Amino acid sequence: MAFHYPNGRRFVPQAMEEKKSPLKKISFSNRGKTLEDDLNETNQYYLAHGIAVIHKKPTPIQIVDVHYPKRSAAVIKEAYFKQASTTDYNGVYKGKYIDFEAKETKNSSSFPLKNFHDHQIEHMKHIVQHDGIAFVIIRFSAMDDIYLMSSEQLSFYWKRMKEGGRKSITLQEVESSSRKITLGFQPRIDYIKVVDSLIAENF
Amino acid sequence: MAFHYPNGRRFVPQAMEEKKSPLKKISFSNRGKTLEDDLNETNQYYLAHGIAVIHKKPTPIQIVDVHYPKRSAAVIKEAYFKQASTTDYNGVYKGKYIDFEAKETKNSSSFPLKNFHDHQIEHMKHIVQHDGIAFVIIRFSAMDDIYLMSSEQLSFYWKRMKEGGRKSITLQEVESSSRKITLGFQPRIDYIKVVDSLIAENF
Repeated sequence: MAFHYPNGRRFVPQAMEEKKSPLKKISFSNRGKTLEDDLNETNQYYLAHGIAVIHKKPTPIQIVDVHYPKRSAAVIKEAYFKQASTTDYNGVYKGKYIDFEAKETKNSSSFPLKNFHDHQIEHMKHIVQHDGIAFVIIRFSAMDDIYLMSSEQLSFYWKRMKEGGRKSITLQEVESSSRKITLGFQPRIDYIKVVDSLIAENF
Repeated sequence: MAFHYPNGRRFVPQAMEEKKSPLKKISFSNRGKTLEDDLNETNQYYLAHGIAVIHKKPTPIQIVDVHYPKRSAAVIKEAYFKQASTTDYNGVYKGKYIDFEAKETKNSSSFPLKNFHDHQIEHMKHIVQHDGIAFVIIRFSAMDDIYLMSSEQLSFYWKRMKEGGRKSITLQEVESSSRKITLGFQPRIDYIKVVDSLIAENF
């Protein structure tokens, strides 16, 4: 029996999501962790080593009902998931404002744009207007390939979709318009190296 | 009958919190809004006028139980408030990373340090180490006086408390070590003006 999120996406239980791919191209691949887990570990590494301070924002929740039991913690009894108006991750690197969203797909030939929504694209445009650094980290989980795409590039594909074009970015397009992030042990997803080259080009 | 938050603070219903002060020194004072409301309006103004992109982070929640009803939105049935590991507000201004916490007190002679916690003080130190701009906005609700105090100054008073000193910052100390923010109509709390002078001094 299939369950669905409010946005229509199918609910996939953890056990199914963590199914390993039979492909094992590099030693650190497919340890069964989500992109979010890997990024949280990476951000902890950056913090502990004085490289950058980047945190994931809490999930936005609409709280409807809270109980205040005597002598114990307040309990939220009814609440709903809200759509985020910004991206999930932000922070500071060498004084610069860093802002990104991270998404993964099981699709191995293209990256579906339904992973993002208008508010996030708008938010990233604002960040760039204010000289911040905005991008998305996308993962093809079948191959465990991870790319960093600038918000300008993403906006290009988003606009193409809005004008009636395809609803995804082909793997070939991703390869030619993004930078691949080599997976490592510590940090797992060393995206700051790519940010360095973005800074070198734009600032 | 008194209810208490997990941290021991008394739960004050909205109606009581919004009680107006009899003092009316300036025209825009005490409209019965919380500091958070005023800052959200201010941040919306900054966004709409292309001045800065600063958002409040969602409240961190520990979700324990979620129901997925057929054909309707997922409902969170049990969740708890978590202590934030960072500050509430962050964003970008002229390419620079901005990070702050906002707190108000009903006390009219001093600002209690229990409004902050160790994680937040540590977080702000990290931000400063990475050349970000970190501060707190504090409001004395009885007088509707609002101040911006740099994280370095706050750390000084925090350290004094940790070493056995007083558990609050006297109003006189706040006045001499912070900058007062003049309240306006739009934006309500124009803290970016003060940030400008911080940048002029430090960067």
